[in-house]
Amino acid sequence: MKKKLAIGVDLGGTNIKAGIIDSDGNVIVKISRLTEAQRGGQVVLKNILSSISDIISKNTQNKNIVSIGIGTPGLADNELGGVKGGAKNLPGWEGIPFKKDIEKKFNLPAVIDNDANMVTLGEFYCGAGKGVKNLVCLTLGTGIGGGIIFDGKIFRGPGNYAAEIGHMNISMEGPQCSCGSYGCLEAYASATAIVARTVSAIEKGNKTILMDMTYNDTSKITAKMITDAAEKGDALASAIIEETAKFLGVGIANLINLLNPEMVIISGGVAQAGNLILTPTIGTARQYSLKYAFDTVKIVTGKFKDEAGIIGAGMYSLKTLT
Amino acid sequence: MKKKLAIGVDLGGTNIKAGIIDSDGNVIVKISRLTEAQRGGQVVLKNILSSISDIISKNTQNKNIVSIGIGTPGLADNELGGVKGGAKNLPGWEGIPFKKDIEKKFNLPAVIDNDANMVTLGEFYCGAGKGVKNLVCLTLGTGIGGGIIFDGKIFRGPGNYAAEIGHMNISMEGPQCSCGSYGCLEAYASATAIVARTVSAIEKGNKTILMDMTYNDTSKITAKMITDAAEKGDALASAIIEETAKFLGVGIANLINLLNPEMVIISGGVAQAGNLILTPTIGTARQYSLKYAFDTVKIVTGKFKDEAGIIGAGMYSLKTLT
Repeated sequence: MKKKLAIGVDLGGTNIKAGIIDSDGNVIVKISRLTEAQRGGQVVLKNILSSISDIISKNTQNKNIVSIGIGTPGLADNELGGVKGGAKNLPGWEGIPFKKDIEKKFNLPAVIDNDANMVTLGEFYCGAGKGVKNLVCLTLGTGIGGGIIFDGKIFRGPGNYAAEIGHMNISMEGPQCSCGSYGCLEAYASATAIVARTVSAIEKGNKTILMDMTYNDTSKITAKMITDAAEKGDALASAIIEETAKFLGVGIANLINLLNPEMVIISGGVAQAGNLILTPTIGTARQYSLKYAFDTVKIVTGKFKDEAGIIGAGMYSLKTLT
Repeated sequence: MKKKLAIGVDLGGTNIKAGIIDSDGNVIVKISRLTEAQRGGQVVLKNILSSISDIISKNTQNKNIVSIGIGTPGLADNELGGVKGGAKNLPGWEGIPFKKDIEKKFNLPAVIDNDANMVTLGEFYCGAGKGVKNLVCLTLGTGIGGGIIFDGKIFRGPGNYAAEIGHMNISMEGPQCSCGSYGCLEAYASATAIVARTVSAIEKGNKTILMDMTYNDTSKITAKMITDAAEKGDALASAIIEETAKFLGVGIANLINLLNPEMVIISGGVAQAGNLILTPTIGTARQYSLKYAFDTVKIVTGKFKDEAGIIGAGMYSLKTLT
C-alpha cells in the first residue's frame, strides 16, 4: 500500500512555499513562488491555488494526496476558513474564506492554522521536538511568532489567540513594536529589529565588514549577513548577535518560569546562526529562570531550515482530516 | 443526608490558617495560629497537626469530615508528600513528608499542593472564577505566586514547576528579586517591593501621611497602610499604587498574549485596594496586550479576602479524594 500524502502550504509575506509531504513527514517535492501581497487578498488566493496546482502537477503519485494544510499569518479561524485579524503584512487577506475555495477547486479536505503553529507542529511531529509532549517553539523571522504544545496538542487558548510569544514584554520602557506596544520580544530579537540595531550602530560610527559586504549600502543589510559577519569574527556583528541572544534568553526564561516546558525550540532564520546564538541564549535563560524549571528543559534550534511550516501543515492535515 | 466536609489548610510563612469547608465551598469554621517558621520544619509540622486537631474539636459535625487539603509554599510533590524546594521562608520544611503524618494521625486521605494553586482553585471552584474554564490567578503577598487553569484543570507543567508568575521578567535591567534574578514581577509588585519603594521615596524626602500613621517609623510601614493612605488621597501612596498597577498591568498583558485566558484574577492583600489598583492595572494591560486577546479577557479582583487558600485546599481534597 502506498503511503498517504498531503500538501502543505506555508503562506508568508514574501513567498508562498508548498510541498508534498508523506505520512512520515518527508518532503517529496517542494516549490516556492511570490506571494505578491501588495496586490491584495484575491491575488494572494490565486497564487496559493496556482501553487497547489503546480505542486500536484509535479507529483507522479498524485492519487495518494488526501488532504491539504495551510499555514497563514494572523489569527486563522477554521470556522470562517480564513483569517480574522493580525495579518498586517497581507493587505486585504483578512476575511477571505480561502479554505473553502481550496477545498472546492481540488476536491480535498483542508485545514488552516497560524503559520507559527504549523512550524511548531512540523518540529513536534518530525523535528527537534519529536516525542516531546510539552514544548514551546519560537519562530524568528521578520517578526517573532510562537507555538505551544501541551500534552501532545497545540495550545490555542479559548479564543484562538494564545502563544503570541513575540509580543511578550521584556522591558516596559523598550522600543516600540509593530503591534503598537513597547518592549515586546519582537522589537528586540526579530530579524527586523536586529538589522535596525546594526544600522543604528553603524550610523554611530561602529566599524564592520558589513559595509564591505554591502558596498557601503546599509539598506542592503540582512539578518543573515549579520550572522555571517559574526561567524567571521566581526566585532559589531558579534556584539549584536550576543545582545540578541540576551533578549531571547530573557524571553525564554519567562516561558520556562510560566510553562515549565520540556523543550524550547528556536526556529527560523536567526536560529541558523547555531551555537553562536544558542550558547549565549541558554546562558541568559539559565540566569533569569528558576533552577528547578531550567534544569528540566532543553533549549535547541529547530531541525528544519525552512521546511518546518510545510511539513507541519501537511502532517497536521493528515492527522486531523484523514 | 449531611453534606461532606473537608479540612483546608493554608500554610504561610507567618500563619497557619485552617478551616472546615462544605462541598459548596462554605467555610463552616476557621482558625489561625502562628507558623513559627524559624523554629524549623518539625515545629511547623507539629503546628499544622495542632491546627487540624483544633479545627476538628470546633466542629460538631465531625463525622462528615472526609478529606484534608493542604496548601504549602514551594514545590509541593504528592509522591514525596512534601515540598521538594522553593520554600525559602520555611527553613527545614523542604523534604519533610508531612502528608503521610497528617493522614496517619487523623485517619483521613490528604492532598497537598502549592499555596498559590490552592488559592487559584478556591477562586475557580467558588469565587470570581466560578464556571470559567481558562483563567490565570495572581496571588499578591510577601511574594507573588500564581496558578493557571486550562480547560477546567490546574496546569502544573510536566515537572510541576509551572505558573511561577511572580518570576516573569518585565524589565531585564530591573531590581534584583528574592530568586536571584533581576526584574521579576515580584521585585516590583509584591507587598515587600511596594513597601521598599515607598520607604526609599520617603528617604528621598517625599512627604506622606504614612509618617504620621507610623509615628515616623518607616520600618512599621506595610502594604496595607500604603493602600489605606492612597485611599485617603495621599500623593506618595497614590503614586506608588499607580506605579504598582503599571507593573502588574505589563505582567498581566504578557499572560494575556501568551495564554489568551478568559479571566485574570488578582488575589491577595494588595488586591484589597480594589478599583484604586484595578482600574490602572486594566489600563496598562490594555496598552501592552494584543487587542483580540484583551477584548476577550476579564481582569478582576478575587472574591475572597484571605479564605481562598483554605477553600481551595478543602474543595480540591473533596474533588480529588472522595
